[in-house]
Amino acid sequence: MRSVVWSNGCLTLLNQTLLPAKVEYIECNDWRRAAEAIKHLEVRGAPAIGAAAAFALVLGARELVELDFAEFKRQLDETAQVLRQTRPTAVNLFWAINRMMAVVNRLPDNTAPQTAICALEQEAIAIAEEDKAVNERIAEYGATLFTAPTSVLTHCNAGALATVAVGTALGVIRKAWSQGNITRVFADETRPLLQGARLTAWELMQDSIPVTLITDNMAGWVMKNKMVQAVIVGADRIALNGDVANKIGTYSVAVLAKEHEIPFYVAAPVSTFDFNINSGADIPIEERCATEVTSLGGNCVAPQGVQVFNPAFDVTPHTMISAIITEHGVLRAPYKQAIAQLSQR
Amino acid sequence: MRSVVWSNGCLTLLNQTLLPAKVEYIECNDWRRAAEAIKHLEVRGAPAIGAAAAFALVLGARELVELDFAEFKRQLDETAQVLRQTRPTAVNLFWAINRMMAVVNRLPDNTAPQTAICALEQEAIAIAEEDKAVNERIAEYGATLFTAPTSVLTHCNAGALATVAVGTALGVIRKAWSQGNITRVFADETRPLLQGARLTAWELMQDSIPVTLITDNMAGWVMKNKMVQAVIVGADRIALNGDVANKIGTYSVAVLAKEHEIPFYVAAPVSTFDFNINSGADIPIEERCATEVTSLGGNCVAPQGVQVFNPAFDVTPHTMISAIITEHGVLRAPYKQAIAQLSQR
Repeated sequence: MRSVVWSNGCLTLLNQTLLPAKVEYIECNDWRRAAEAIKHLEVRGAPAIGAAAAFALVLGARELVELDFAEFKRQLDETAQVLRQTRPTAVNLFWAINRMMAVVNRLPDNTAPQTAICALEQEAIAIAEEDKAVNERIAEYGATLFTAPTSVLTHCNAGALATVAVGTALGVIRKAWSQGNITRVFADETRPLLQGARLTAWELMQDSIPVTLITDNMAGWVMKNKMVQAVIVGADRIALNGDVANKIGTYSVAVLAKEHEIPFYVAAPVSTFDFNINSGADIPIEERCATEVTSLGGNCVAPQGVQVFNPAFDVTPHTMISAIITEHGVLRAPYKQAIAQLSQR
Repeated sequence: MRSVVWSNGCLTLLNQTLLPAKVEYIECNDWRRAAEAIKHLEVRGAPAIGAAAAFALVLGARELVELDFAEFKRQLDETAQVLRQTRPTAVNLFWAINRMMAVVNRLPDNTAPQTAICALEQEAIAIAEEDKAVNERIAEYGATLFTAPTSVLTHCNAGALATVAVGTALGVIRKAWSQGNITRVFADETRPLLQGARLTAWELMQDSIPVTLITDNMAGWVMKNKMVQAVIVGADRIALNGDVANKIGTYSVAVLAKEHEIPFYVAAPVSTFDFNINSGADIPIEERCATEVTSLGGNCVAPQGVQVFNPAFDVTPHTMISAIITEHGVLRAPYKQAIAQLSQR
């Protein structure tokens, strides 16, 4: 189960919209197909879309091999711009694209495009490889928070499917499970697109980790009945003050955790931090189309023409977050200082 | 749009599992079909299932017309027992059945079964007619809580479809809307069975009341963004201390309302109060089958064999409830006194 695979110069994406019913892969020979996959959530999860966009840029660069280097850079910049517009909230997308473009911009003016393409491919592979190492370190640090058998709740999918490796939140869960400190995972189904039901439950079952699927509106009752002792989620963008944008519903879970005095953990790589914004108020929240809410698999589940509000993300204020687990360690409040230190690494 | 219709001695139920795609009615010539309709949520909503069960008992009694009265009563008691077992949480079901059986038990020993059947029919009609009047009074009292244009959030369906008339929570909304004090209704879709999407949104659209459909996990974000100023829901059973059992997810909404300092109102007839239990801890919570969660609109949306937790209701503690609106007025804390007074009416 690998969400983003680069092999022999070819990009293959696991089509996550078809899971768990079908395990089907998308061969992306064209960067436009990869852009479409990001836009339509065939590949999703902040770290995974970062890696997918990096490889898409390699595919895009190949089309420009015949041009002189100035024109190559100009047109690659246009490709990057289209890729940036696929999803607005997860910052890893911009982080990965900017890192790729920096590679090209560092090269001398007389560089042959083929040389630039090789450098881009190396950088994209490095991004993906680093994500694996980062996942492992997040898992290690996160597992230190679980020192006794714990039942945990998670929202959406911050797993192998959202990254290039073991996952962020689910990476922590996998590691803590292997150490005997996870008894069960409650997975919110995560409407509208059901990443919890389709992806998280599926991933955990593949690894034989005990998982119980609930609808999102059961999380409060599960906490009230002391069926979970911790919450852990991923993130799509983290501001300088520690505010976290993540899948819609995360904020509600955080409020519920606060009410029940249950620790609320976020697991995310440094690439998820946006060091340019002060707070969650500055994070753009993607709104997606009404049909995600009103239909499923072509079946209409709501009245024709009903008005819908469909934000894809929400922002959890730093005050509700017990700790943020990164590859450089576990951050605790006051987050401003901790994140400022992180930005200077 | 009438959920429960008794006409010419025949019971017709609107099949709510098919809404909004199909408006189809179930002709119940047999009490067993009515019992099945209650069990499978073809008719749902606490007051509506009370009325449906009362009419079902009339149908059941008719089968026993040839018996002597003692045997008539014994067998009708068996029918009542089966009806009681259709749903465990909503107390209106038991209230209506007990009220019907009391009618029979008050009759002299030499009563002709045909006479008892007529008395039962009159009582069932009275239960339904009273529900209409009760709905109107709840709407009147509830509307007094809305004195300025307000955007309100509701969960599940406590509307015309849940009752015999204008509804409880939606009755209040209809009345306040007619007085210019409702600007918009946010309807939680209410997984797993989507009563909010399928029924509440549909009902409100039929009345041209502005409604916005959201998934359950968006309620917190909607509150955080100050898009609603009040919450109003129905109830399935209310304990002596004011704890309220209602559709799963209600408790989470109450916690969110508390966090955002938004009033949380419950609208319910006196028949929803259980004067025999002290607190919500004593309310039995129905658990329903896993397929309600693992499928959506008939499509499988989760891995085969995944473990599921599917409570149909939860309990909101009285401390989180701003007011309970009944046909005898608006109850406020301390609820113990207010409900004790109600029980003595």
